[in-house]
Amino acid sequence: MQFNHFSIIDKPFDQVLSDLAGLGFKFDTALSAKSNLKNWLQTAPIAMTSLAATDQETVFDFLDSETPLTWDIFYAISLQLLDFVAIFDFQLTDAIPFAKSVNLPLTDLSAELSAEHLISAIYLVMNSRRQTGMTLVEHWVSEGLLPLDNHYHFFNDKSLATFDTSQLIREVVYVESPVDTQNRGHYDLIKVEIIRPQFDGKLPAVMTASPYHFGTNIKANDDKLHDMNLDLVEKPLNRIELAEPSLTLPDYPATEVPLAENNRATEHFTHTWTYSLNDYFLARGFASIYVASVGTRNSDGFQTSGDYQQISGVTAVIDWLNGRTRAFTTRQKTHRLTADWANGHVAMTGKSYLGTLAYGAATTGVAGLDAILAEAGITSWYDYYRENGLVRSPGGYPGEDLDVLAELTYSRNLDAADFLVNNPAYQTQLTDMSQALDRTSGDYNDYWHARNYLPHVDKVKADILIVHGLQDFNVTPSHAFNFWHALPEHVTKHAFLHQGSHIYMNNWQSIDFSETINAYFSAKLLDRDLTLDLPPVIWQKNNVAQSFESLAEFGGHDIEVLPLGFTGEVDQFENHYPAERFDAYSKHFQTFKADLFEDKANAAVIDIHLPEDLQVNGQIVLDLRLKLNDTKGILSAQILDFGPKKRLTDVSTMLEPKTIDRGRNFMLDDLRDLTLVDKPYQVVTKGFMNLQNRQQLTEVNSVVADDWFRVELRLQPTIYDFQAGDTLRLALYSTDFEHTGRDNREVSYAINLEKSRLYIPKSKKERINI
Amino acid sequence: MQFNHFSIIDKPFDQVLSDLAGLGFKFDTALSAKSNLKNWLQTAPIAMTSLAATDQETVFDFLDSETPLTWDIFYAISLQLLDFVAIFDFQLTDAIPFAKSVNLPLTDLSAELSAEHLISAIYLVMNSRRQTGMTLVEHWVSEGLLPLDNHYHFFNDKSLATFDTSQLIREVVYVESPVDTQNRGHYDLIKVEIIRPQFDGKLPAVMTASPYHFGTNIKANDDKLHDMNLDLVEKPLNRIELAEPSLTLPDYPATEVPLAENNRATEHFTHTWTYSLNDYFLARGFASIYVASVGTRNSDGFQTSGDYQQISGVTAVIDWLNGRTRAFTTRQKTHRLTADWANGHVAMTGKSYLGTLAYGAATTGVAGLDAILAEAGITSWYDYYRENGLVRSPGGYPGEDLDVLAELTYSRNLDAADFLVNNPAYQTQLTDMSQALDRTSGDYNDYWHARNYLPHVDKVKADILIVHGLQDFNVTPSHAFNFWHALPEHVTKHAFLHQGSHIYMNNWQSIDFSETINAYFSAKLLDRDLTLDLPPVIWQKNNVAQSFESLAEFGGHDIEVLPLGFTGEVDQFENHYPAERFDAYSKHFQTFKADLFEDKANAAVIDIHLPEDLQVNGQIVLDLRLKLNDTKGILSAQILDFGPKKRLTDVSTMLEPKTIDRGRNFMLDDLRDLTLVDKPYQVVTKGFMNLQNRQQLTEVNSVVADDWFRVELRLQPTIYDFQAGDTLRLALYSTDFEHTGRDNREVSYAINLEKSRLYIPKSKKERINI
Repeated sequence: MQFNHFSIIDKPFDQVLSDLAGLGFKFDTALSAKSNLKNWLQTAPIAMTSLAATDQETVFDFLDSETPLTWDIFYAISLQLLDFVAIFDFQLTDAIPFAKSVNLPLTDLSAELSAEHLISAIYLVMNSRRQTGMTLVEHWVSEGLLPLDNHYHFFNDKSLATFDTSQLIREVVYVESPVDTQNRGHYDLIKVEIIRPQFDGKLPAVMTASPYHFGTNIKANDDKLHDMNLDLVEKPLNRIELAEPSLTLPDYPATEVPLAENNRATEHFTHTWTYSLNDYFLARGFASIYVASVGTRNSDGFQTSGDYQQISGVTAVIDWLNGRTRAFTTRQKTHRLTADWANGHVAMTGKSYLGTLAYGAATTGVAGLDAILAEAGITSWYDYYRENGLVRSPGGYPGEDLDVLAELTYSRNLDAADFLVNNPAYQTQLTDMSQALDRTSGDYNDYWHARNYLPHVDKVKADILIVHGLQDFNVTPSHAFNFWHALPEHVTKHAFLHQGSHIYMNNWQSIDFSETINAYFSAKLLDRDLTLDLPPVIWQKNNVAQSFESLAEFGGHDIEVLPLGFTGEVDQFENHYPAERFDAYSKHFQTFKADLFEDKANAAVIDIHLPEDLQVNGQIVLDLRLKLNDTKGILSAQILDFGPKKRLTDVSTMLEPKTIDRGRNFMLDDLRDLTLVDKPYQVVTKGFMNLQNRQQLTEVNSVVADDWFRVELRLQPTIYDFQAGDTLRLALYSTDFEHTGRDNREVSYAINLEKSRLYIPKSKKERINI
Repeated sequence: MQFNHFSIIDKPFDQVLSDLAGLGFKFDTALSAKSNLKNWLQTAPIAMTSLAATDQETVFDFLDSETPLTWDIFYAISLQLLDFVAIFDFQLTDAIPFAKSVNLPLTDLSAELSAEHLISAIYLVMNSRRQTGMTLVEHWVSEGLLPLDNHYHFFNDKSLATFDTSQLIREVVYVESPVDTQNRGHYDLIKVEIIRPQFDGKLPAVMTASPYHFGTNIKANDDKLHDMNLDLVEKPLNRIELAEPSLTLPDYPATEVPLAENNRATEHFTHTWTYSLNDYFLARGFASIYVASVGTRNSDGFQTSGDYQQISGVTAVIDWLNGRTRAFTTRQKTHRLTADWANGHVAMTGKSYLGTLAYGAATTGVAGLDAILAEAGITSWYDYYRENGLVRSPGGYPGEDLDVLAELTYSRNLDAADFLVNNPAYQTQLTDMSQALDRTSGDYNDYWHARNYLPHVDKVKADILIVHGLQDFNVTPSHAFNFWHALPEHVTKHAFLHQGSHIYMNNWQSIDFSETINAYFSAKLLDRDLTLDLPPVIWQKNNVAQSFESLAEFGGHDIEVLPLGFTGEVDQFENHYPAERFDAYSKHFQTFKADLFEDKANAAVIDIHLPEDLQVNGQIVLDLRLKLNDTKGILSAQILDFGPKKRLTDVSTMLEPKTIDRGRNFMLDDLRDLTLVDKPYQVVTKGFMNLQNRQQLTEVNSVVADDWFRVELRLQPTIYDFQAGDTLRLALYSTDFEHTGRDNREVSYAINLEKSRLYIPKSKKERINI
C-alpha cells in the first residue's frame, strides 16, 4: 500500500508541544529522547505490552533496558501503532525501509535523535494515517483519548471528534424560499433536516443539497425515458440567439408569525440518509444540513431542474442560517424558528446532483457560503445531456434527459395525497419543459442557458474545492474543467482529480481526504487561519496504485501534434448496421463498446505508437478532414490506451469493512480504494458532435454531401500518463449506442488522414511538481 | 417482490387489543370500523396528510366524508404505510390484487368489515413487513412510537426496540476457562467483549463466538497454504481404529481474588465488529457477547482449532454468566467480576466458524445455552477439509487445511511482543498438528475424531436453529444435514435452507428472518411461552424469486432411480491433461469449472431429460460400475441443472442502502436479497472420493487395476426443484482443480453405464406442505 498525505501542516516546535499537551502528552526536552518516548506510550490509549521494539525485545523490556533508542526502533514501534503487523507486514529489523516503501512521512533521519527531534517525529506519526484509514491521533480520540465535552479541540489545525454524537439534535424546519414555482401566491417552503451536536456557542454548518434526499420516483423516471432508436434529423440553418437569463422573484407580503416556544423545532426525525464526510464533521462540531429544494417530498413547488429557482431553494437555507429569511416549525407556518445556534458559516458538499447544486449556489455569491466541495458536479446542464448540438446521453443512461430527471426528483408524487392534488398542474409544466429542452435539434437555447452556471462565475465568493473522476463519463470531467477555467483569478480553487468514475473518494486508504477537508473547513468555517498548503491540483496517477501527485494546472499549455496518417492516406467507415447487429447493440450497449474498442464495429481505428512518455493534461483536440455522402451526421470519437496492462478499477473496492470511525463508534465506514487489475485497454477520453454544429455551438450550418470539410472536435479533458511504447488508439465513428441517438441510416464517412491530426495538451517534460 | 412471513403469531382478540393498547392505540369496538381506522392513523407516527384513500380522495378527505370504509380502501392505505408508492407501485383502485401479488398476509376479505375485524386486520398489517425491510410496528417504534425506557415491550410476542443504544455499556472481561492449552500451569483466560443496555433487572445474552473477532493473520495463513499440485499416493490397506475422544481438564488451585470495586469492569472499548442480528437484539433487551476463545489476541493459550478445548473456552463464558466460573478485570487477575446483570439465558449466533462453535457448544450440553442459531456451521471438521478418504479443499479455498486456519486464527501473533515470547512454543504445537491432520492419506483419524461434534449430539439441550445455503460449497450442506439427522428425537430443531452460498440471510427483503428469531429468543431467553408455530424446514425455492416453502423434512424417503445408460453402454474419461492446460486450470480453477460444466474437460458427461417435475430432497447417491487402469484414483461427480434459465444469484444483492434500522437510528443495515439472473446452468450437488475408501470411511481397500468394481458415492444433500423438461447433467471425472489434489497421472476411467444409476431422494408428489 501507499500513503499520500496532504493534510499535514508544518508547525513550529512550540505549537507541536502545545498541540500534544492539549491531548495530555507531557513532554520534557530536558529528559532523554527515550524518556519522552516512554511518556508518550504510557499516555497513549494503547496496550503497550503488545508492542515489540526490536526482534529481541518487547517495548516493555526495551524501556527498562540500556538499549539506546534509535530511529529504527522508533519507527518499528510507530508502524505497529499505525496498524502494521510486525514480523508479517514488516520486519522489526527493517522498519525504516518499510516505512519508506509505504510512503509514510518520515522525520529527518540524518539529524540527531534529540528529545526535541523525537517529539517532532511523534507529532508527525500522530498526524499520519494508520493502515486502516484513520490518522493515529483521530484513532486515539475515537478510542477515548479526549472526553466528549462538546467543545472544539484542534490538533495540527484540524478539529477532533469531541462532540457527542449519541446526543445529537435532529430537527426539521421549513425554510421560506424567495420563489413560487407553482404560482400559488405563496413562497415555496423548503423542508430541511438538521443534525447538530449540543453546543453552548454557535456552530458552522456543512450542508448537502440533494433532490434525492426525501426519495426518488424511479417508476416515473423509467416511464419518461426517451426512445434512442431514432435517426438524426437535418436541422435548418440557424444562428441561435440567447436572452440574458434573469430570475424575477415574486414579492409577497409577509404575515406576522410568532416565534416557536423557546425557539425550538417541533418536528424531529430518527434517521435519514447522511453523507459519511458530513458525519465526520458532525462529530467535530459542524452541523449537518440536508436540503432537497423545490418540488420534493414535503416541500412546496414544482421541480424546475437546475435553474436558479431551484438554486434559490438551496441558498434560502444559507440565508436563514444568517438571519436573512424565515423558517417555520410546520408547513402550516404556525410558528417561526431562527437559527440561533448557527454561526452563519456554511460549506456545501456532495456528489453528482448534490455537487451540482453546490456549484450553482456558489455562483449566486450568497453570503455565508465560504467553501464548496463539489464532487462530480454538473456546471452546465446542457453539457450533461447534449454535446456540440447533439443529444448525447450521459454514460450509462441512454434515453435520459432533464425532463426524465425531473420526474425522478419530483418526489412529491411519492405521497399519493399530494399526487391527487398537485400532479395535474405539475404535468402541464413538465410538458412545457419537455418542449423547451428540444430533443429534436439538440441545440443550446434559453432553456439550457438558464441552467448554465458558468456565465455567473463572476459572482463566486466561496473557495472552490473540486473532486472529479477522470473516468467519469456520466458527469464528465468537462464540468470541472470548464468551471475551473471560467473562475475569476481571485477565487481560491483546488481540484482532486482521481482515476475513478462517478464515485466518492472520502473513505480511501491511500489519501487523507477527510483530514485535508477538515483542515480546510476548520479554518474557513471557524474563523481560523488557513494554514494548509494545498496544491492547486492533486492528481491520481493512472498507471500505479495509490499514488497522487501535486500539479500546478488542469490543462497544459504545451501541445504535441500527432498526425493521423501519411500522404494520400484515407480511411472510411459506415454508419449502418444490419438489423440483427443493430438490435443487439441497442439492447446491450456494452457489447457495442467491446466491439468498438477491439475494432470490430463500424469505425476508423487508428493506432499510434508512442515512442516516449507523454502526460496528457487537458482537452485533446481532433482536427479532421472529413467527407460524408449525406447532409447530416454524427461524429463520435474515443481515445484509448490500448493493450493489456494492469490498470486501476474505476470503482473502489472494499478493503476492510467498517474500520473508519466517523466519531466515537459513529457511522463506521468501510475502507476502500481503487485497485490495479488486468485490463485489455483503458478509455482515456471521448467526444461527440452533430456535424451541423461544427463551427460553433450556437450556429447550425450545412453539411454538403460528398464535399471535404474540416472539423475540430474537442474531447473530454483529462490528465493521463502514457508510457513510452504505449499504443494510443483513436476510434472515429458515428452512432454510439451508449451516448448518441441510434441512427441507422446508410451513410459513408471518409477521413483524409494525411490532413488530420491530434492536438494533445501536455504537462511539460519537467513535471510541474510543486 | 414477494413477502414470506413466518414470525406472525395468531392471537386471540383480547391480546390483539392489549398488544395495540400497549403501543397507545385505543380502539373501541362500539364505534364504527371507520372511526377505529381514524384513531389508528391519528395515533400512528405518520404524516396522515400524505396518504390517499381512493383515486379521488385523500385520507383526510375520506375520513371527513360519507364514503364507506371498504377492504379496498383499508389495503390501499395500508400498502402506502408499508412503503409502496400509490399510482406508481400499485393503483389505488387495485390494492387488494396487488397485496395478493406481493404475498402480503391478508385478513378474511369475505367477512364483514366490523370494527373488531378491522382491528384484527390492523394488527396483521402492523406485524407485516414493509417493502423496505422492517415490520410496520418495528418501523414505528424506530420512529419513536414508544419511549426508550430500557424496559421490555412485547408486540405479538416479540420484543420491541425500547432499549437505549446510545447509552450502551461496552466492557471487557477475562473469563477463566477450564483448559490450559499452553501447559503453563494456569487456566487460559479468554477475552470477552460485552455490549449491554442499561437495565435494572437481569438480561439474557446473545453470544457470538468467533476466533476472527480480535483479528486474523492473513499473511501467516497464506504462507502456510499447502501445495495442491501433487499426485495421489497409494495407501496401504488399513482398518482405522479410533480412540474414544476425551477431554482431560487440569485441576489447578484457585487463588483468592477480590471482587472489583462495585463489581465494575475497568476495561472498556469503543467499537468492535458486531453481527447485525445481535445489534437488533441489543436494542430489544439482549446483551451482545463476543468471545474469541483460546489462542486469539489478548487471550491465553494456543489455537487448538475446533477441539473441545477450544469449545470449553466458549462455554466458559456461559458458565460465567451462570456463576459457575470466574472472570477478571485484567489478564493480571487482580480483581474478579461477576455477571450480576445476566439472567443466565444464552443463545449463540453466527456464520461459518462462528456457527461451528455454536454447534460445538451445544454438544457439550452446557446449562444456560437455550438455543443456537448455527449459520453455515461446520459439524465435523473432517467433512470440511476431507471427503471419503480424500483431501478435499472447501470450495474456493484450494490448499487450505486446519493448520492453515490455525495460523489465520492464532491472532496472538499480531502482537509483536506476544510473538517474541510465545511463537516458538506455538510453532512446535502447530508442527504436531500438521502431522496429525495427515494430508498424505486423507484418512479419518483420532485428530479429526476429536473435532467431530456429531458423536456428542446426545448431550444437546439447546434448541437447534440451523441456517444453511444449499449453494454453499465452502461449508457444505452436509454439515447441517448430518447434525439434523444425528440429533436425538427430543431435541427441537428448525432449519432455514436458502439458495445462497456462504452468506447471512438476516437482512433480506423477502423473509422476516430477524423477527422470527426474535419470537424464538424472546420466548426461550426471557422465560416466556414459545407461541411461534415454526415449521421444521423453511426452504427457499430455487426457481422463483423470493419464495419460501414450509417442508416437513430435510431428506425425503421416496427414491427415484435414474439409470445412466442402456445395455452395453460404456463411457470413459482420462485423468491426464497436457502441461499447458493443466497449468491454466491450476492457476484459475474457474476456467476448469466452466470447461467441465460445458463438457470441454476430461469427464464423462451424461445428460438426463426429466419428463416431469422432481423435487430432490436429501442426498443423491451415485451407484457406479467403474474400472480404471491403476491401483489408486480420485472420483469426482457434479450434478447440474443444465441449460439457460433465470436462476437465483448465490450472493445477495443490495436492494436499498441502510433502510433497516436495528434500533433507533442504530446500526442501519442494507436491504438485500437473492435475485434472478440469466445463468447457463446451476450446480445442484457434488461429491468426491478416494476410491481406496469406497467401502467405508475407516477402511482403506485396494483398487485392482483393470477390474470392474462397484462404488456408491453419496453427494451433498440439497433440496432442489427440477421442472418437467429440465436436463439433469451428471459430470463424472477425477481431478478437480478447485477441490482435490491436482493429480495429473495418466489414468483411464471406464464406467459401465448400463450398470450405473442415480438414487434420488425426493419429496412426495403431493408436497408435504404443512
